[in-house]
Amino acid sequence: MTPEAAPSTGTADVPKIVSVDDHVIEPPDVWQSRLPKKYLDVGPKSFRQRGIMNFVGGVFSFEQDDDGDEGDWWSFEDGAFPLTRLEAAVGFDRDDVQVVPITYEGMRKGCWDRDARLEDMDLNWTEASTAFPSSFVRFCGQRFYEAQDKELADLCVKAYNDWQVEEWCAGTGGRLFPMIIVQLWDPQLAAAEVRRNAERGCRAMTFSEIPPYLGLPSIHDADGYWDPLFQACAETGTVVNMHIGSSSKMPSTSADAPAAVGSTLTFNNAMASMTDFLFSGVLHRFPDLKLAYSEGQIGWIPYILERADTVWEENRGWGGIGDKVPEPPSTYYYRQIFGCFFADDYGLHNLDRVGVDNVCFETDYPHSDSTWPHSKEIVQKRMGHLEPEVVRKLVRGNAIDLFGLDLQP
Amino acid sequence: MTPEAAPSTGTADVPKIVSVDDHVIEPPDVWQSRLPKKYLDVGPKSFRQRGIMNFVGGVFSFEQDDDGDEGDWWSFEDGAFPLTRLEAAVGFDRDDVQVVPITYEGMRKGCWDRDARLEDMDLNWTEASTAFPSSFVRFCGQRFYEAQDKELADLCVKAYNDWQVEEWCAGTGGRLFPMIIVQLWDPQLAAAEVRRNAERGCRAMTFSEIPPYLGLPSIHDADGYWDPLFQACAETGTVVNMHIGSSSKMPSTSADAPAAVGSTLTFNNAMASMTDFLFSGVLHRFPDLKLAYSEGQIGWIPYILERADTVWEENRGWGGIGDKVPEPPSTYYYRQIFGCFFADDYGLHNLDRVGVDNVCFETDYPHSDSTWPHSKEIVQKRMGHLEPEVVRKLVRGNAIDLFGLDLQP
Repeated sequence: MTPEAAPSTGTADVPKIVSVDDHVIEPPDVWQSRLPKKYLDVGPKSFRQRGIMNFVGGVFSFEQDDDGDEGDWWSFEDGAFPLTRLEAAVGFDRDDVQVVPITYEGMRKGCWDRDARLEDMDLNWTEASTAFPSSFVRFCGQRFYEAQDKELADLCVKAYNDWQVEEWCAGTGGRLFPMIIVQLWDPQLAAAEVRRNAERGCRAMTFSEIPPYLGLPSIHDADGYWDPLFQACAETGTVVNMHIGSSSKMPSTSADAPAAVGSTLTFNNAMASMTDFLFSGVLHRFPDLKLAYSEGQIGWIPYILERADTVWEENRGWGGIGDKVPEPPSTYYYRQIFGCFFADDYGLHNLDRVGVDNVCFETDYPHSDSTWPHSKEIVQKRMGHLEPEVVRKLVRGNAIDLFGLDLQP
Repeated sequence: MTPEAAPSTGTADVPKIVSVDDHVIEPPDVWQSRLPKKYLDVGPKSFRQRGIMNFVGGVFSFEQDDDGDEGDWWSFEDGAFPLTRLEAAVGFDRDDVQVVPITYEGMRKGCWDRDARLEDMDLNWTEASTAFPSSFVRFCGQRFYEAQDKELADLCVKAYNDWQVEEWCAGTGGRLFPMIIVQLWDPQLAAAEVRRNAERGCRAMTFSEIPPYLGLPSIHDADGYWDPLFQACAETGTVVNMHIGSSSKMPSTSADAPAAVGSTLTFNNAMASMTDFLFSGVLHRFPDLKLAYSEGQIGWIPYILERADTVWEENRGWGGIGDKVPEPPSTYYYRQIFGCFFADDYGLHNLDRVGVDNVCFETDYPHSDSTWPHSKEIVQKRMGHLEPEVVRKLVRGNAIDLFGLDLQP
């Protein structure tokens, strides 16, 4: 009897995990090996220097400092951005995880090396994984959206996606499945990029929870700014993944509130975003569009669904809500939205309301919150009371269906 | 057999309701009969004119217009503020509830007349009630905090409180119990006002969920700006009541989001405020302080408690959280915080986690969300599955304990 089959936990066989939210530290050659020569200098380029972190008014910043920590930094246009321990935290004691510059060698190799990543997934009972970009690119590619030269930015987006498909995921037998970034500043370009990648099998893209926080039109835009993108995603079965923090504005109450307040409220923008979508009419107009709220956790979802249905019921005569959203908002949730979690007993306790088909699991490698290398034990501990068929859906089945993965369900 | 004792609903005897969140429209003489002569003109004064509402960029404003609706307005310093149908909605069809100016005669008398209020409470199976101010005074007295003349503002606060105690609540045998406003701009004055009113039996004051949103120091303020007020409340057993909207900044995602998005997310600031308090150390330093989140609903609370405990557990070594907050945050919730609700099946379904002793009921008279005159039926419908002893706690017992009311439990 293998340890996995031990009967003591009540979950004799934890199905292999499919994680819908991990992260990758891009290796140094992603852009240097792909951009045209004229852009090699101003495009993303890795270099090494010593530097320090400043934390003022709730905002991190970094500067070169010969007395600081040695680290690998990205230069891009006029800026410089270090890799930090915080986002390459796996394998380090929590007390050693600080927001300080580090080198590639100073982090666990699985952060940026594909083969090492697969080995770390093996250590963590994880069969397959999709990864968001690093804090250099940012969760939905904000770095390139904010670039001055949009021709360069367009090429950077495509280079990142080519690297995802051709290097990071290629040859892994589907164990790493690609997630692309898009040109947020041009929904037509973004739609074309979704289609270009869908043709080679990509079924995941990243988006911002709340585009107006980035200075972009909202999903309520009267001219349908985002429609070309949503149309392309719906037609190609490309899932819109929105990670906490992808609106670049983390929830807080005041500049002097402890960081724990913001950490507790990180799901807040996911919740606001879901509410936005429920009342936008987007899910009615694009019934095949699928949304996933990465690291949003799930216990709050039934509260929002009940509240949204109540507000809809009481106000659908006002302001045309009933025309835009002909069914109770929860209808669209159960049909088209997925919550993603790794730690949420309250949500699991209420799985009938969260929706047993609406939840995916994640390991959040290599962030400081990651359950690696204990994700299997987390499943055993937190889901041990659930039926095996339910556990299977949560830890892999729903993700396989959602992303159309070529894996055994 | 009386209708109340009919066995058909499964709750043969719904206990009489004690509502911890209603509202009052101040009658015209509150300040004119109390302010010194020199302030009668610039102080709050009722007058009648025709006017219209403008709704631009998610913000309501009003102006005089001879073609508009006749209404009673308050003048105060340089401003003018109408009574509106939205906050005096009971007795009107939902389709007729618009944000338009109205007169005192145009609203149900119970909005502003004490005896009529008691009659409306009788119609609604409500034994006792406490009321927040109108949108003129605003939920935690923001009107006077924003006043230019703070001597006048101080007198206005005291006049409101005197009216609450001496007129609105006096002679009702405790059926109306007072809630005071305080001088938010001066915690020493506010503390003295709490003590002055506690001496005559008042056990409730209103506060802002998130003072920094009003331009005030946060509850994390290193110099303990709010400590005198919290000290006075803790010593006198005065409950700090924070109504949704009391931070004057309603949650939304964009200017073009439908109003339903903000309505669904109204609890958001209550949630952020509760998280603030849990990590502030205030509840540890003032163990007798009690907080109530009016109209915040309750289904989201267990998610926040679990998440806050996790963040505390993982980070208590950082930034001194463990010193300020020596116990898991949920400890303070169960000891000192109360959720207030009228519609929340998800919360009731999870009452063991919300805390059967941590919830109070409300009828929200006379707002458009009010369950009046059907609050009893709401209790029957939504709580019919609960043990009678639990229902009793929710609809009256917890409120009687919290506010120290002289009523049969």
